[in-house]
Amino acid sequence: MKSRNRPESPTARRLDARALRYSASVKYDSSLYAFDIAASIAHARMLGKQGIIASDDAKAIIKGLQEIEREIEREEFQWRDELEDLHLNIEAALREKIGPAAGRLHTARSRNDQVATDMRLFVRTVSFAAVDGLRGLQAAVLDLAETHLGTLMPGYTHLQRAQPVLLAHHLLAYFEMFERDIQRFATTAERADVLPLGSGALAGVPYPIDREVVAEELGFSSLSANSIDAVSDRDFVIDFHASAAILMTHISRLAEEIILWSSEEFGFLRLPPKFATGSSIMPQKSNPDIAELARARSGRAIGNLVSVLAVMKGLPLSYNRDLQEDKQPLFDTVSNVMSTLEVLTAMVPSLQFDKDRMEAAASAGYLLATDLADHLVGKGLPFRDAHQSVMALVEYAQSRDQPLASMTLDEYRRFSPLFDEAVLRLDARSSVASRDVAGGTAPGRVRDALKQARRILEEEWPARSS
Amino acid sequence: MKSRNRPESPTARRLDARALRYSASVKYDSSLYAFDIAASIAHARMLGKQGIIASDDAKAIIKGLQEIEREIEREEFQWRDELEDLHLNIEAALREKIGPAAGRLHTARSRNDQVATDMRLFVRTVSFAAVDGLRGLQAAVLDLAETHLGTLMPGYTHLQRAQPVLLAHHLLAYFEMFERDIQRFATTAERADVLPLGSGALAGVPYPIDREVVAEELGFSSLSANSIDAVSDRDFVIDFHASAAILMTHISRLAEEIILWSSEEFGFLRLPPKFATGSSIMPQKSNPDIAELARARSGRAIGNLVSVLAVMKGLPLSYNRDLQEDKQPLFDTVSNVMSTLEVLTAMVPSLQFDKDRMEAAASAGYLLATDLADHLVGKGLPFRDAHQSVMALVEYAQSRDQPLASMTLDEYRRFSPLFDEAVLRLDARSSVASRDVAGGTAPGRVRDALKQARRILEEEWPARSS
Amino acid sequence: MKSRNRPESPTARRLDARALRYSASVKYDSSLYAFDIAASIAHARMLGKQGIIASDDAKAIIKGLQEIEREIEREEFQWRDELEDLHLNIEAALREKIGPAAGRLHTARSRNDQVATDMRLFVRTVSFAAVDGLRGLQAAVLDLAETHLGTLMPGYTHLQRAQPVLLAHHLLAYFEMFERDIQRFATTAERADVLPLGSGALAGVPYPIDREVVAEELGFSSLSANSIDAVSDRDFVIDFHASAAILMTHISRLAEEIILWSSEEFGFLRLPPKFATGSSIMPQKSNPDIAELARARSGRAIGNLVSVLAVMKGLPLSYNRDLQEDKQPLFDTVSNVMSTLEVLTAMVPSLQFDKDRMEAAASAGYLLATDLADHLVGKGLPFRDAHQSVMALVEYAQSRDQPLASMTLDEYRRFSPLFDEAVLRLDARSSVASRDVAGGTAPGRVRDALKQARRILEEEWPARSS
Amino acid sequence: MKSRNRPESPTARRLDARALRYSASVKYDSSLYAFDIAASIAHARMLGKQGIIASDDAKAIIKGLQEIEREIEREEFQWRDELEDLHLNIEAALREKIGPAAGRLHTARSRNDQVATDMRLFVRTVSFAAVDGLRGLQAAVLDLAETHLGTLMPGYTHLQRAQPVLLAHHLLAYFEMFERDIQRFATTAERADVLPLGSGALAGVPYPIDREVVAEELGFSSLSANSIDAVSDRDFVIDFHASAAILMTHISRLAEEIILWSSEEFGFLRLPPKFATGSSIMPQKSNPDIAELARARSGRAIGNLVSVLAVMKGLPLSYNRDLQEDKQPLFDTVSNVMSTLEVLTAMVPSLQFDKDRMEAAASAGYLLATDLADHLVGKGLPFRDAHQSVMALVEYAQSRDQPLASMTLDEYRRFSPLFDEAVLRLDARSSVASRDVAGGTAPGRVRDALKQARRILEEEWPARSS
Repeated sequence: MKSRNRPESPTARRLDARALRYSASVKYDSSLYAFDIAASIAHARMLGKQGIIASDDAKAIIKGLQEIEREIEREEFQWRDELEDLHLNIEAALREKIGPAAGRLHTARSRNDQVATDMRLFVRTVSFAAVDGLRGLQAAVLDLAETHLGTLMPGYTHLQRAQPVLLAHHLLAYFEMFERDIQRFATTAERADVLPLGSGALAGVPYPIDREVVAEELGFSSLSANSIDAVSDRDFVIDFHASAAILMTHISRLAEEIILWSSEEFGFLRLPPKFATGSSIMPQKSNPDIAELARARSGRAIGNLVSVLAVMKGLPLSYNRDLQEDKQPLFDTVSNVMSTLEVLTAMVPSLQFDKDRMEAAASAGYLLATDLADHLVGKGLPFRDAHQSVMALVEYAQSRDQPLASMTLDEYRRFSPLFDEAVLRLDARSSVASRDVAGGTAPGRVRDALKQARRILEEEWPARSS
Repeated sequence: MKSRNRPESPTARRLDARALRYSASVKYDSSLYAFDIAASIAHARMLGKQGIIASDDAKAIIKGLQEIEREIEREEFQWRDELEDLHLNIEAALREKIGPAAGRLHTARSRNDQVATDMRLFVRTVSFAAVDGLRGLQAAVLDLAETHLGTLMPGYTHLQRAQPVLLAHHLLAYFEMFERDIQRFATTAERADVLPLGSGALAGVPYPIDREVVAEELGFSSLSANSIDAVSDRDFVIDFHASAAILMTHISRLAEEIILWSSEEFGFLRLPPKFATGSSIMPQKSNPDIAELARARSGRAIGNLVSVLAVMKGLPLSYNRDLQEDKQPLFDTVSNVMSTLEVLTAMVPSLQFDKDRMEAAASAGYLLATDLADHLVGKGLPFRDAHQSVMALVEYAQSRDQPLASMTLDEYRRFSPLFDEAVLRLDARSSVASRDVAGGTAPGRVRDALKQARRILEEEWPARSS
Repeated sequence: MKSRNRPESPTARRLDARALRYSASVKYDSSLYAFDIAASIAHARMLGKQGIIASDDAKAIIKGLQEIEREIEREEFQWRDELEDLHLNIEAALREKIGPAAGRLHTARSRNDQVATDMRLFVRTVSFAAVDGLRGLQAAVLDLAETHLGTLMPGYTHLQRAQPVLLAHHLLAYFEMFERDIQRFATTAERADVLPLGSGALAGVPYPIDREVVAEELGFSSLSANSIDAVSDRDFVIDFHASAAILMTHISRLAEEIILWSSEEFGFLRLPPKFATGSSIMPQKSNPDIAELARARSGRAIGNLVSVLAVMKGLPLSYNRDLQEDKQPLFDTVSNVMSTLEVLTAMVPSLQFDKDRMEAAASAGYLLATDLADHLVGKGLPFRDAHQSVMALVEYAQSRDQPLASMTLDEYRRFSPLFDEAVLRLDARSSVASRDVAGGTAPGRVRDALKQARRILEEEWPARSS
Repeated sequence: MKSRNRPESPTARRLDARALRYSASVKYDSSLYAFDIAASIAHARMLGKQGIIASDDAKAIIKGLQEIEREIEREEFQWRDELEDLHLNIEAALREKIGPAAGRLHTARSRNDQVATDMRLFVRTVSFAAVDGLRGLQAAVLDLAETHLGTLMPGYTHLQRAQPVLLAHHLLAYFEMFERDIQRFATTAERADVLPLGSGALAGVPYPIDREVVAEELGFSSLSANSIDAVSDRDFVIDFHASAAILMTHISRLAEEIILWSSEEFGFLRLPPKFATGSSIMPQKSNPDIAELARARSGRAIGNLVSVLAVMKGLPLSYNRDLQEDKQPLFDTVSNVMSTLEVLTAMVPSLQFDKDRMEAAASAGYLLATDLADHLVGKGLPFRDAHQSVMALVEYAQSRDQPLASMTLDEYRRFSPLFDEAVLRLDARSSVASRDVAGGTAPGRVRDALKQARRILEEEWPARSS
């Protein structure tokens, strides 16, 4: 026999225990409680205002929901698996608090539009949080870049030394990536910013509801235009995953570089002990675990994106229970994105570069070969011919294990009579200085880029970047 | 010995035959020729204007490139695998046409910024093409929806009949999805709309180039701000894949419904012979192959998105040859998206609905159960209690295999004394009419939604929708 | 100052709090405790036996570990995040129990070979569990099929009715799929069945260990042959994911059919209340949520497979911390696979088919068209011509909305003079009976297939299938 | 008007041009022609033998098919898109050659079982080809390893130098991975080795066919046991993709190491010009493009695996046209796998290691720290305490930038009085020698492993490895 103290789900009351366990979502969807309660309060207030339920009932519902929220915050709330999900747990608790009036809350709505509303509130919130986290990481990268305007390093293509660049310029490449990520998450937030509540199960509701006032209370900018679409749609969840997968891919590249640079072979970077991990058996190890984990979590972000796309593929309209499976991959990715942003933002300022070693690497060997070709172009040679001549020259030097810096003008002239003394004055700094074009690595350009980056942060993130 | 007639790649001339075959991309990147030539012409014109190369050389280069483009268009151009890629094939052909001046074209650029420019031009173009294709599909869906404002059908959740809706309303759900897809591809086009040329190999170039004038000639709105990022970045390719995967997921849902509805069991839809395929052995078959293929191609769009994300994961900056592998998945997805849009736009107008059968399905059984609960709410019962009463009522009717339509008022009152005669007047049309909220399925709301959709098409796609 | 009561990780003692939180794995890897302790006990026993540590120390270690295991089982063990992971938590607890001798346990091993051992024990165990779960599901499917040897249904291609088949034959298709899944998981178990312990950090260990005796105690069939590979390899994890993704794809197909068949339109299947879920607002709904969730979880299994492949891609040898990220996707998929097998095994026996409706569907319309063509082939017509004649005949009948069953011999003969009276005796049962080939749907063949399936279960799963 | 010279598809004759273009597969499935014709010949021979068609017709069909095969081989065959697919192209050509008897070939089969047969023949063949390619790559790796038994290098964990190992040992780790890949492809071949022909459209066929004789002629070991499963199943395709994705992931790791090792920073490896690529602008570049492309193609292999899993997800039985989309991702992956194996097998023998640099790296710094701890354990210290002492010692040395090799015994004893003179004799070679356990890097163990690997190759790949 059922007692008042053992509430049951109105929808799953006869369910086989294994089926209930399989379908119950309260273990993870309970984390949406704040959004669910906010949406229920807005809904109840509107129902009262519109006279769909009595004003007193509306007030009792709102008060009850507020109490429940506080109980959840204080971890005093008892979640019950047998009540299936977040929504029915809260409704049951409300009934215990205020009696049958609780049964009026679900007037003019369905779990279908309710959970879509919760998820949109959640995605909007975490998208903004990702933007905020990214601003923080940008700030850390920018701070570091500003201290390295004078630091030379080899620029790489194919992981081969290519041309000298400024470390500040290299770091600003990440600032750019993160700026695009911010735009992407901002767009994701906009796409989530549509109120589905009022769509009912799928067809709309037969009550004189005021969707505008609910949207306003919850801060939504617009109303969903089609009730069937509104309960079937999880595009905004996929958008978040896509934004996250791209961001995490950027981070995997930064992580890869931190790992490379802190290897003994590169030796560009030293991780401070608070961001390096030891080994259980090798006493000398100082491992870049944080970067490795960040790199790996990009793999999981890709997998989670796939999960939700595969879940959605081929589903007929409108709501199908498959949509419940949008949650766990999303929560996993949100947690990974936020924790990765947090830990990198903490770690980036602590990166200690070995400037001398980086500058030596930029100056060694043959990184100025392109400059030699450009030198010949300046003397009138077509670039392709200049390139050929310098290739022969480099092969000559390499075969003698001789860096360019030690070549004499006579040696140069064996490969082209057009070489003149200016070629002996070429060095990594002059090479960098010569890339004086928009977006190039010349110090003046990089200084401007740093200023521009600082301006963006100050404008877009004023509270924090001061 | 090399002859002038057997041009060789300046970069791969000593390459092992198997390595050349493995790395040569000309088989697929040649499809980018129009973008590559346009970018080379803009580059050459700018070099001439800036005095970086002689004006006559610039003119000869431009004229030569224009001839090459015409030869390619007429399929008279001989592509050579041993020249590795599109860029070197064109440069070699140019050299044959105009001699050593051809070697001046590659001044102040690298293949790294060149291919990034080509790819951005391509992604921008195909994003706009996808938008255009989507507008066409929206128009086909809207035309169909307009003819079905009066057609009732069962709305489904969990593939179970849920509540009656208008077919027009259901079809407009796809209009909404495609509208979001259009926004997504428009954003993708914007993200591709940045000129990387001028970034050189990775550091910028040591020539007084004018990036603005090149951007203007090629129609780019802005310049890449960081040369390292510019040659390393393929975000815009991933953006396209993500947009395509979401679009194809929408299409997989429409395809699933076309397949379901044209089954004998549903019988809502008949495919005309020109969009139905027979069987090699079963003479009676009329199969929805087009819809099945469209559904399956969503799977491939997801796979291609994964490919490029996995390719990018963990790459250090700047350019790595891995980036070449961005092309084949992209070309495959572009082709699938464009052909799917084309064939669906052709097929949608030919869909013949069996209105009587749909209306009968909407009226049969228990689709008005929610309306009964709402009826009781109207009499003052809390929704949850009304829901319980009607559940008992439906179980009673189901156990006797009796549709709601045949129930008497006495029978209703066994389950709640609050039922009154109005309950006997409930039917599928009144149910639909009662969902008179923003986004709901009431005829007036759907009529407004159709008008709004038409307005969007007329404004955004004026040339075609007239 | 450190107290004995605040143990710290020997490897992460100076780690930044955020970095520790980011890298700590104890929240999820603690679920491997039983495998970790078993491996540690085997290792300690061997160290003692080989005289690498004192026999008394080995005994103390083993006893301590056994106590710790019991504490964990009783949930009396206090897991500490600041101790990073499972291994260090257990080592610290051991030290509290037995003092400095605990420090001898980690002789001649590293966390790298230790965690590889734990994971292989885990994958082997869950692979066998999946086999067992699959046997149970096969038994449920077979029980059901045995009761439906006489039940006719329409066989489908393209979701169009194609040819009549026996329901038992259709259900046995899933038996076959699950049989392949069993083979796949058995192979996965074999691939996990290799002991990596003894590989040390990556190079092997400088102690006279006996790897064979450890393998024997832990039930491993062979030793890893290369220490670098042994600590770098997660193929066996990917194998499990691939097996799971294929299994879940099979289940998604069964789920799809349960959903289709329990729709009002098909009406082949009724879900009992204990496996059907109601709606929060629509009182009549009886939704196939379990099948929908199972279908969706196939999407997540695919995503998790992608996660681990993407994690592994491009990692240099040997161990990298990225490998830690193999765990969460695996645990998620194991949980989804096991719970899905459990719930389907419970649900399948409860499926109630509407035999009359299925048989009527198999007999209606034009499912015998192929039989007509085969009839003409029997009279000497080439199949392709027979196919053409019957196609015309079906079009004629369809245009008059006349099922084949109501056609007269005269009507048949309009399309081919070769038709004779036997054609009038064709029906769904004779059609089924005529498919009397190995693997065909003829009752005798299906009876044999049922027997063969029963034999497999009795031999492979004797304890349960009796 | 149709002429005999303009054959049309019997199944798609009225299809809209766009629909035909969308669904036609002949552009890619024509590559299966040899398998299709072999299967048709076996089928026709059996039909004749069983008296299902006249013996003369069978002979004419077989002769006609053989002629067609030769025409295709000589590229004299005219493929026609309007005939949809490979099968109907061949049937139409056969009709042109031998007249109406061609129409008897499709007796007792359907395209559904036909294409499943073709695909199984294809997957079996390419699985064996992958095994053969892998044996070749193993041989190349083994040849290289045999020449480097004496070469020391630093073993890495976390890309940090960990412990000295032999290069031969490191290379053999790849031999092990490829051995597992071989097992995986061999299993894939076995799983494909089942004849589906005889399953008809889905139900079996009503003719007295002899499936055994067809299986024998085509070399299949067994018959499919359930006709519905036989036409619905593409597990064997997914198996191939999974095997390929894992193989390509292994290759991505080897590629990553080739890229790292050929960087200036590592300097372990020099790529010969025939496997290194230049830059279009940087004359000094010698880029590891082949390795980069191989790394990237692992990304595409993962994507293609996802494609086919997503295609299969949620499909009802039996055949759906979605299955046609199994082909393009498979052909892409087969091509990538085979070409990657080919190019790596060519490149591996050309890798030139800088032994001195590798040995110096193995001897520098602190790679012997674990050996020091093990030294103390030998004196009776618990490992954990030894580890702590050596950690302090290493920190001391690092702070003075002093390698272990220059430490005096007095210095050692500051950190533990247990150190004795033997510690001064530790070096990279003694460290390696001490890892004398099964699977360890001690020279004797590695010599045994090389022999064992050679034995495997000689036994499993006798023709080639002699």
